[in-house]
Amino acid sequence: MDDIRDVEMVPCTDSRFLRPKRVKYTQNGVQKTWDYMHVHDSVVILIYNCRRQVFYLVKQFRPAIYMNTYHRLYGSPEEKSGVQTLPGSQGVTYELCAGIVDKDVSLKEIAQSEILEEVGFQVPLEKIEEVTSYRGNVGVAGSLQTLFYAEVTDDMRVSAGGGLKEEGELIDVVELPLADSRKFIMDPSINRPGLLLFAFMWFYDTKMSHSS
Amino acid sequence: MDDIRDVEMVPCTDSRFLRPKRVKYTQNGVQKTWDYMHVHDSVVILIYNCRRQVFYLVKQFRPAIYMNTYHRLYGSPEEKSGVQTLPGSQGVTYELCAGIVDKDVSLKEIAQSEILEEVGFQVPLEKIEEVTSYRGNVGVAGSLQTLFYAEVTDDMRVSAGGGLKEEGELIDVVELPLADSRKFIMDPSINRPGLLLFAFMWFYDTKMSHSS
Repeated sequence: MDDIRDVEMVPCTDSRFLRPKRVKYTQNGVQKTWDYMHVHDSVVILIYNCRRQVFYLVKQFRPAIYMNTYHRLYGSPEEKSGVQTLPGSQGVTYELCAGIVDKDVSLKEIAQSEILEEVGFQVPLEKIEEVTSYRGNVGVAGSLQTLFYAEVTDDMRVSAGGGLKEEGELIDVVELPLADSRKFIMDPSINRPGLLLFAFMWFYDTKMSHSS
Repeated sequence: MDDIRDVEMVPCTDSRFLRPKRVKYTQNGVQKTWDYMHVHDSVVILIYNCRRQVFYLVKQFRPAIYMNTYHRLYGSPEEKSGVQTLPGSQGVTYELCAGIVDKDVSLKEIAQSEILEEVGFQVPLEKIEEVTSYRGNVGVAGSLQTLFYAEVTDDMRVSAGGGLKEEGELIDVVELPLADSRKFIMDPSINRPGLLLFAFMWFYDTKMSHSS
């Protein structure tokens, strides 16, 4: 997954994925404009195997993380004649299973599909719990993300997961033992999204406080 | 703050703030491209007045949240002849004090400046604790955000805060009592970033577990 070569900046004309929009408005009598992007709402799922006491995370190469790290180490990649080589591992993240809301079904059903596609468990809807919703990237996109919690058992496994190969997804499923999870989530040397930290803290607070 | 009028979509040509970039690379032998944006790294600070048992949050109108909510309720704003009116309150968020890393000083000093500008406390560096760093928006930007925790007392107050008026910032400082905070952070009807939820959960876990 982290064999990354031939990194090259190319002109970005008319991105299909990132399309800045501009809105003009008057706030308390003052005219303002703001550039933003419309981003799909999304779901993320903390998946826990209670009998085996492990969480399931997805590990993947994220070009945006790789380039952000490149920029911090070497400056703007566009000002270089050739992009210097950074190990591909620098762009690898550990994330919760997640997906965008692009179908007209319930958020819980989208969560259920993503668990199946990415991690390989067929989880009944009643085993998927909605935790809360919050906003992502308030400056630029402001999309709504909903966190779910799913408890799985080995008999729900139907595949190895790994995402949709036909969509070019290259995802490894990683087991994180509960006993190692506190150290893992607080380790800044591991690329993981801020929200993952909340999901685990919520778990410790809600699912463990009465048993520990 | 939430008196929002005359909302209008205008063509977004050559945004100064949102500039998609494109990177080409080869992952495990397969050539791929990815569009991303370079976003500044940032700091956020959970600010707690331990004697009065209140947190300080910043409240502001966020156009991206407003437009995301608009889109969910009415569909794409660009397909309308006039943008329908949504109350400005729908775009108001409650956030941690935060700022981007755009100066060549330590992250802790940037945190210290932001606390002063936005919330009005002059906090000594030794009262500002680094919690951890994590990644924001792994798909698009991947920038690094560092969470700090600052304990303040009333004698550190030097102004009312509210951000830099010359930069057009319109920020209200809001006091959130510790006793109300759990209900607040889990309420999906309040616009607040996912990371704020982690910060509070970290506080309950780290600062309260031995005293409660």
